[in-house]
Amino acid sequence: MGRMLLQAAANYPVETHVMENDDECPAAHLCRYFIKGNIRDFDSVYNFGKNLDAITIEIENVNIDALERLEAEGVKVFPKPSVLRTIKNKVLQKQYYLEHQIPTAEFAVLQSLSELDQWEELLPAVQKLAEGGYDGRGVQIIEDLDSSHLGFNEHSVLEKKIKIKKEIAVIIAVDQNGKTALYPPVEMVFNKDLNLLDYQICPADISQNVLWKVEAISLSVVRNFNSPGLFAVELFVDINDDVFVNETAPRVHNSGHHTIEAHYSSQFDMLWRIILGFPLGNTKFILPSIMVNIIGSDGYSGEPGYAGLDEVLKIDNAFVHIYGKLQTKPGRKMGHVTILSNEKQDLIHKANKIKQLLSVVA
Amino acid sequence: MGRMLLQAAANYPVETHVMENDDECPAAHLCRYFIKGNIRDFDSVYNFGKNLDAITIEIENVNIDALERLEAEGVKVFPKPSVLRTIKNKVLQKQYYLEHQIPTAEFAVLQSLSELDQWEELLPAVQKLAEGGYDGRGVQIIEDLDSSHLGFNEHSVLEKKIKIKKEIAVIIAVDQNGKTALYPPVEMVFNKDLNLLDYQICPADISQNVLWKVEAISLSVVRNFNSPGLFAVELFVDINDDVFVNETAPRVHNSGHHTIEAHYSSQFDMLWRIILGFPLGNTKFILPSIMVNIIGSDGYSGEPGYAGLDEVLKIDNAFVHIYGKLQTKPGRKMGHVTILSNEKQDLIHKANKIKQLLSVVA
Repeated sequence: MGRMLLQAAANYPVETHVMENDDECPAAHLCRYFIKGNIRDFDSVYNFGKNLDAITIEIENVNIDALERLEAEGVKVFPKPSVLRTIKNKVLQKQYYLEHQIPTAEFAVLQSLSELDQWEELLPAVQKLAEGGYDGRGVQIIEDLDSSHLGFNEHSVLEKKIKIKKEIAVIIAVDQNGKTALYPPVEMVFNKDLNLLDYQICPADISQNVLWKVEAISLSVVRNFNSPGLFAVELFVDINDDVFVNETAPRVHNSGHHTIEAHYSSQFDMLWRIILGFPLGNTKFILPSIMVNIIGSDGYSGEPGYAGLDEVLKIDNAFVHIYGKLQTKPGRKMGHVTILSNEKQDLIHKANKIKQLLSVVA
Repeated sequence: MGRMLLQAAANYPVETHVMENDDECPAAHLCRYFIKGNIRDFDSVYNFGKNLDAITIEIENVNIDALERLEAEGVKVFPKPSVLRTIKNKVLQKQYYLEHQIPTAEFAVLQSLSELDQWEELLPAVQKLAEGGYDGRGVQIIEDLDSSHLGFNEHSVLEKKIKIKKEIAVIIAVDQNGKTALYPPVEMVFNKDLNLLDYQICPADISQNVLWKVEAISLSVVRNFNSPGLFAVELFVDINDDVFVNETAPRVHNSGHHTIEAHYSSQFDMLWRIILGFPLGNTKFILPSIMVNIIGSDGYSGEPGYAGLDEVLKIDNAFVHIYGKLQTKPGRKMGHVTILSNEKQDLIHKANKIKQLLSVVA
């Protein structure tokens, strides 16, 4: 993520500083100054940021106290630390939606698994840890009270399962004056067996009516943050065409990767415009697109090899991004491919072809 | 140029090493390893390259002896040093065209200005220094013998002036197996008063017949080099629709900048495919485009400021690239803007608008 943000930075008059734990991380060699440091540690984050004009994040786990101190001392932080506090904790995030009358799945807050009995009416449900979940970890489906032992005995959200017709994501930009720009919604298509994103298609195939709801809800999510930044709002459309917020990311996001080639202003370009105080970019697409993640194959850990890459690079309308991570492991995002075409069937055909051709081995 | 090449490298599994004189150059902070060194010096180039798998250049002035030694020792050099030798010297370059029956303007080779009298039949002519010319320097128009004192008293080419209808450039890729891929020709439109590129439009507005000649001639230029690499062939179309090679660059080139957003595989992406032994990319355009250079304004030298950048960033279909050079001076290329549109009038209108809006001051 940082790597793609830095690729976009190279078009602007800006001096980049990056902090990460690992000085062999993909972003380390594409910035002006790299500092090795622990993003969770107050002093590291504070000392990194105190002489900068502005700071942004590409993961929620950054030390928020340090970001707040920096903000108080006049460093511009994108998004505001208060937004990170709300989003990072799934309980606070759900309460935020409730407070601002933003449709979201019915839920209860659990302190421990023993409270589950009181919430039978929410089952089947999805239990999510308040903190620490990421990329599918910290999430558990609980079908009924008999399977309650599968749950987490921790501070968590218990969310009534929605009868999902489609999963949608919207990238929204908010500039320093509060002006907003929405990208066209994308549709995330999941492999039901593996619970893994199969591909993501833009624009989403939804009715005008659903589109309006998606846009209105996404806008109310970000407007109530009162913060500039680049946000990804993930939503469910249920079988009645009702729309619910699933969750929000306050940063550049996997669901916006297609914007690099398919849109006039990419999500990365857009975030630089926001940070640098430039006018917002054009969110329209040049061509419809599909995006496939390149995922570390099961059974392989270590230095990555990209089997089938040659064949994928022969596909006329495919754009390949290998992130340069030094280690692969099962399920790790190692890159992505975006395909552009006016023909939806061509997009889906090529996406499936790429998934068959390409694997990350070690 | 190096900067954009490194932006494209970030999509591939490749470790980049860059050598330049100036450790604040735009490429210095987008590579894995930067080495400060003199590209004209044998030892610097040789020591830089001796442990690398492959090496390429973004300017012709690299020490060719060192590149030849590296090539002999098994380092892959793109293009072959022999090609650099031919191209770097305008006399050798012209003789190369002659030798391979490639149409080019009639010419004579001068050792000194006193020989000019013998070549009156070539006047009006363009005199070009054999070595050392760059971006318009080292080039002089000589209308008649009365103005012969304007000429260079040096080893040079005297080239009969062609009655130019259009100036065309073609980017061609040659992979390690000799397979070629041509980008659609672009048309370079010059400001006659300033002799500066006004803008460059893709695709060129030429007849099918002229297109065939342009493609055949460009192909014969690169095929006879017997070298993999990325080449830009600049051509004249005269008032009779005859086509002549003007000159060739053996590297990524200003006339290919529009390919970053307007084409499936950019010239930078393509060069990485060639170097890494991947299949050639797709040279087709996604949309027609126009490219405008951002040039240091007259009367300003020093740390650059980009007056009007905000207004340019509001243009819906414009892509801005600021190269991050630390100093501007009159005429220096400081960036470029590419515009995409299906409407040629929209392209030209926006190009003119950008030229009015944007200036590089200090």
